[in-house]
Parts: sequence; C-alpha cells; structure tokens
Amino acid sequence: MKAGIETIPEGTVTSPEGFFAGATSAGINKKAENKPDLAVLFSEAPCVAAALFTTNRIKAAPVVLSQQRLKQGRAGAVVVNSGCANACLGERGVRDAARMAKLTAEGIGISPEEVLVASTGVIGVPLPMKRIAPAVEQVILSRDGGHELARAMMTTDTFAKEMAVRVRAGDSGFTIGGVAKGSGMIHPDLATLLCFLTTDAAVGLEFARAALKKAVDVSFNMLSIDGDTSPNDMVLLLANGLAGSVPTDAFERALEQVCVYLAKCVAADGEGATRLIEVTVSGARNLAEARLAARTIVSSSLVKAAVHGADPNWGRIMAALGRSGVEVEEAKIDLYIGNVAVVKAGAPSPFNKRGVIKLLEGKEAAISLKLNLGSATATAWGCDLSEEYVTINSRYMT
Amino acid sequence: MKAGIETIPEGTVTSPEGFFAGATSAGINKKAENKPDLAVLFSEAPCVAAALFTTNRIKAAPVVLSQQRLKQGRAGAVVVNSGCANACLGERGVRDAARMAKLTAEGIGISPEEVLVASTGVIGVPLPMKRIAPAVEQVILSRDGGHELARAMMTTDTFAKEMAVRVRAGDSGFTIGGVAKGSGMIHPDLATLLCFLTTDAAVGLEFARAALKKAVDVSFNMLSIDGDTSPNDMVLLLANGLAGSVPTDAFERALEQVCVYLAKCVAADGEGATRLIEVTVSGARNLAEARLAARTIVSSSLVKAAVHGADPNWGRIMAALGRSGVEVEEAKIDLYIGNVAVVKAGAPSPFNKRGVIKLLEGKEAAISLKLNLGSATATAWGCDLSEEYVTINSRYMT
Repeated sequence: MKAGIETIPEGTVTSPEGFFAGATSAGINKKAENKPDLAVLFSEAPCVAAALFTTNRIKAAPVVLSQQRLKQGRAGAVVVNSGCANACLGERGVRDAARMAKLTAEGIGISPEEVLVASTGVIGVPLPMKRIAPAVEQVILSRDGGHELARAMMTTDTFAKEMAVRVRAGDSGFTIGGVAKGSGMIHPDLATLLCFLTTDAAVGLEFARAALKKAVDVSFNMLSIDGDTSPNDMVLLLANGLAGSVPTDAFERALEQVCVYLAKCVAADGEGATRLIEVTVSGARNLAEARLAARTIVSSSLVKAAVHGADPNWGRIMAALGRSGVEVEEAKIDLYIGNVAVVKAGAPSPFNKRGVIKLLEGKEAAISLKLNLGSATATAWGCDLSEEYVTINSRYMT
Repeated sequence: MKAGIETIPEGTVTSPEGFFAGATSAGINKKAENKPDLAVLFSEAPCVAAALFTTNRIKAAPVVLSQQRLKQGRAGAVVVNSGCANACLGERGVRDAARMAKLTAEGIGISPEEVLVASTGVIGVPLPMKRIAPAVEQVILSRDGGHELARAMMTTDTFAKEMAVRVRAGDSGFTIGGVAKGSGMIHPDLATLLCFLTTDAAVGLEFARAALKKAVDVSFNMLSIDGDTSPNDMVLLLANGLAGSVPTDAFERALEQVCVYLAKCVAADGEGATRLIEVTVSGARNLAEARLAARTIVSSSLVKAAVHGADPNWGRIMAALGRSGVEVEEAKIDLYIGNVAVVKAGAPSPFNKRGVIKLLEGKEAAISLKLNLGSATATAWGCDLSEEYVTINSRYMT
C-alpha cells in the first residue's frame, strides 16, 4: 500500500463523515423473503455527485431518472433496491422510479430532486409499489448503516463488497468509502453492477467527475464476468465536503484503490466462480491496445473454462490475444502463467506442467503477456467459467 | 427451396465433376487413434480458387502458407489434417506446412504451389511429420472420397457436415458441393471452422471471390459458438470449370444455400449444444446494425444459458440488444419467441409461459426482434450454453 492511505477495518460506505444508511425487507426479492432488499444512503450535508452509467442502449428507469438528476452534479440521498430491475416497463417504470425517490425524500425531509434511484434484479417485472411505500418509512438511518445497505444490495452475491480508506496528507485527512454489488444474482439477467462511493473530502464537480472516470477506467471498466452489460449499471460518487479540501493526487490514488478492491471482489464473486483471473498485458503499443487485449483474454469463454479446470492450455490465451485485434508480432510475445514462462519469443517454452496446474488451482490465477512492442500496460479481472454458472443461468424463470 | 436448385441426396464436396478425395489415419489425433485425420481434396482440372481466412492476428502456419499461394487465385489440391493446428510454432510451423504441401504434390503429380494446406487441432504442438510423410502416400483418391474427407476433418463433431446442390438453369447445369467442420473438437482451443466448397461451374476469379464473400457474410460470418475466433479458420471455394459457364445469379443463390446449410449444421453441433438458436433482427436502420444486433444476441452467454434451460427470460435478449450498440427506440421494439409475442412496443406482452417453454425445448429455438426503425434484416445462428460445454473445455490438456 502506498504511503498515507490506510484501510479502515470493517470500513464501509458510511465510514466518511456525515453519511448515514439503513435498510429493510420490502418483500421485493421473493427468493430471499427476509433478506433486506431496500436501502437508503443519505448525507447530512449536500453532496457534489458524479456518476457513470451503463452504456447499454436499453436503460432501466432508475438509470434514466438518476442520469437526468445528476446533470447538475448534486445529490443528497440514494434509494436502492434488489430483486427488481425496473427495466423494459415503459412509462410505468419511469413513474415508479420517480415515486420511489419522492417517498424517500419525504421520509428524510429533503427535495425529491436530490434523491437518486438504483435498482437491480429481473427485467420486465414491475416494482411492487404497494410494498415499497410502507417499507421506505421503516428504514432507520444510522452512521454504521453502510453494512446493512451492502447486504440489501446483494442478491446471490456470496459476500458483501465494502471498503473504506483513511487518507492522511499533511495536516488534512479524509475518508473514502464504497460498496458494490456484483454478478451473483438471483436474477442474473443483468450482471448488474452497482457501486456507491462516498467521501467527506471537499472536491469540485469537474474534478470529481474526472477522478471517478479515471478510477473506473482501471477498475470496473476492466472487469468482465460474462460479457453482458446490464441496463442498470451505475457507479456513483458522493462527496459531502465535511473534511474540507484535500490534495488531489492523494484523493485520486485512494479512490482508485477503493475501486480496484471492489472490482476484484466483484470478479472473485462472479456467478459460479471458483477463482479470480487477473490478466496483465504489458509492452503494448498504447494503453487502448493493452486494455483491449487484457479485457479480451479475461472475457474468453475458452480461457475461462481452461482456468476452471486448472488446465495450462496457453494456446487459448494466444488465440484470444490474436482475436482482440491489437497489434502483435508473434515472434516477440512472452506469455507467463503465474511467474512461469510458457511462451518465449512466440514459441513454446518447456515448463513444469504439474507446477503450473498447481498455480492455476489457487484462488487467483495470474496470466501475463509481454508484447514487447511498446511500454503500455493494463490489467483486467474476471473469473473462471464453471458448470455452476450455466446451471444458475439456465434455470431462473422456469 | 427456390426453383432450379436441388439438393443431391448424400451430396458432398466431391459431387461436382472432376473432384476426388481420400483420407487416412496418420495418428495425429491421439484421442481417436483409428479415426482418419489426414485427407486430400484434388481436382483433375486446375481450379479458380477463392478463400476467406481467419481475422485473428495470430495466424496458423497453414493459413499463412495458403493465403500466400492463393494470391494468384489458382489451386489444384488441398491437404487437411485434424488433431494439430500447427499454430504458434514459429519457423518450424511454416516449414512443416510447406512440407505437407510438397508431399501431397509429389503424391498427386502436380506442382507444390498448387497445393493448399489446412489444419485444425491443438495450438503449440508440432505436427508429427514422421507419421505424416508415409500417411500422405497411403491416401487413395476417389470420386466419392468426399465423405471420407468430411470424417477426417472431424474431431469431436458429432456428425459430418456435407452438402451438394445441383443447379439446372436453362440448358446448362452445374453442381456445388461443400464440407465443413465445426466446434465440437477434442482440442477446442480454436473453435476452428474449416469449410471447403467445390464446383464444376466455370467462374472467373473476381466473381468467385465476390460470390464467396457474399455467401460467407450471410452464413459463416453470422455464426457464433463461443465468441472465440481461431487462428486456423478458412473457407475455400474451388471451381474447376468442367461444367462450363453458368448464370451468375443462380450460382450465387446455390452457393449461399450450401453455406447457410453448413453454417447451421456447425451451430447445431456446437460443443455441448443441445439446440440450434436462430436470431432474426428486422426493421433495423441498416444491414450492418441488423447483423450486429443478431450476432450480439446469439453470442450472449446469458441468452444461450436461458435457451439451454428453455427459460423464456426475454429480459436477457433485450439487454443483449441494448448492449450491441445499434440504434433502438425502446418503445418501438417487438420481440417474439417462436411466433409468440413476448414484448410489444417495448412493454411486456402477456404470454402463455408453458407454451413458450415448449417452443424453446425443441431442437431449434427461434428468436425474432422487430426494431421498427428501418427495413434491414439479418439472421444469425448459434447454440445453447450447457454445463457440458464447460466440462469439455475445462479439461483438455490436464
């Protein structure tokens, strides 16, 4: 860890000053009756708010609503539910999302325009508004409510993804917290990614937007579970300024650290996953090509299936690299599994098969390629493809 | 079937006049000892030859060699093996491919420059040239050897993919035959597609190239098993002219029919597949968008897993459509499973769930989307994603 940034034990999205959260069970998620499935995140001071949304052209109603409200770059609260995506429902979906925001605003005592909405779950099924209205009233906000919120976002995630770091820089100090949900869903139509990041640092809107984009580019944008982009994806940063102004470089580094940690958690907890895959491509001509190559390899069904079987079948990695379309010179490529060279200068390099199988059998499989053409490097994360993934995803609605 | 084009019962790649083929077991494919794994296709008259090759930047040695030899657009024979891709082997791979061509040329009595080479199998393992040399001599060419050749190309394909059509147009007549191998491989690193098409029609090189590209664009290029492109893919058309000149439109239609048939066979026989998926997108703004949308949907792991479970989970189809990036207006989209509307004008349409499940349980699952924005239509083919696919692909080398 770089100097000045400390992980807070059991840190969460409400670790930064002034943030409150709470959750309740609204009975939205019928497959987990007593699990909390509705939560609210609130800052006592109004926030500068920056967000990145799904690039899917089919956008869920809460995405449409939040995107519009964030044009001004300010927000005070977020209401989030799991179990229903509120997507592909026409006008009704938009009305329901707006009503969720209004109910939340009334409960807290702020303006509805300050409330953002996020949903995750099955597409094409309407929100049970009759159950949501009384449930919103039941939510009790507290300073350590971030843990409850992290649980309420989960569907078939096997663990909550939370983190916070404390940054001391000179005399000042600030905190960044975050929660994310991944792709272990009861309704895995979406591989929905939701991530809320909070900070008490005082940052300007333009800087917040730029820092978020920069952090997401090297974390969530380098993550693939199954190649399907959800209509609900949303990464949100709320900065309430209570800790005063901060050094921008420390803020960027800390934000990146939180995002990378949460992205790796999401990858490791992918549906049916038994291990995390980390692919690093170095020596590319430029960053765009390094990123594309790393993402293509980590997304390849054949690479993912081989890693599942701890099979050192490196030809699949080479084939995925070649398919990515980035510039390569075959005779210059080095390929490593863990720290073992399996290809040197484009030709097979003899290796201890049993040793490499053992490396692949761990919780994290590391693959690295040196293209030896330039100096750009990128890392992408994903997970193995298991029979369990297919089973989960072939039997939802029936 | 359109008038004038007749399917030949048990037709194959040697059905057109003047084509001969034969195969033998060279012991290349160690997982199927007695299966033929080396074959030769030969035309007694020199051919106009057009081909399309993999777009993968890592190209197997036989692809590099054949691509170079085809610059002049002429060929007389092809030698093909299964069980070894002859890829990622540096200079050695190039030498071995050239030697295979030379041995074949000597056996037949033509110039080595007239011989093309195709390989499919595991990457990074050299060809056993000591076994290949005597095996080439053993190949006996015959007029109905196409069936043997189709079998020799197979690895874990569960059936041979062969077809021929006879076209009668006015006084003239000609034949087009074809064989393909798909992605049910013992060494499925590649999802290797190999397809050889033959005809006794006399066609010019430019026309042959254009007609092949046109046919492949609506057949093999609309096919996806698992999104991984092989370094060995090759579709080859050999035209020996023995039947004289032919009407170009009939030739194009017949070639397309053979290619679509073979592509559908490859899709239906995808690794671990239990059913064919056919996705048709109509009403797109232009053909490029129709094609992209159809391909994206048929390639989606979540759609494929849902079809495997006969799960009418249409939200995944909408999400994949949105992810494809093509222009859509959500409120205009109609979505059908078989002939049952599940979405009308962007909103859920009530349907008989049991009936749709039954439709999906058949051997062919048909999905169609009407975007209602323009008049372009495209169809893509793929297969369901099964636990068996993962099992096959997680345990090869170990």
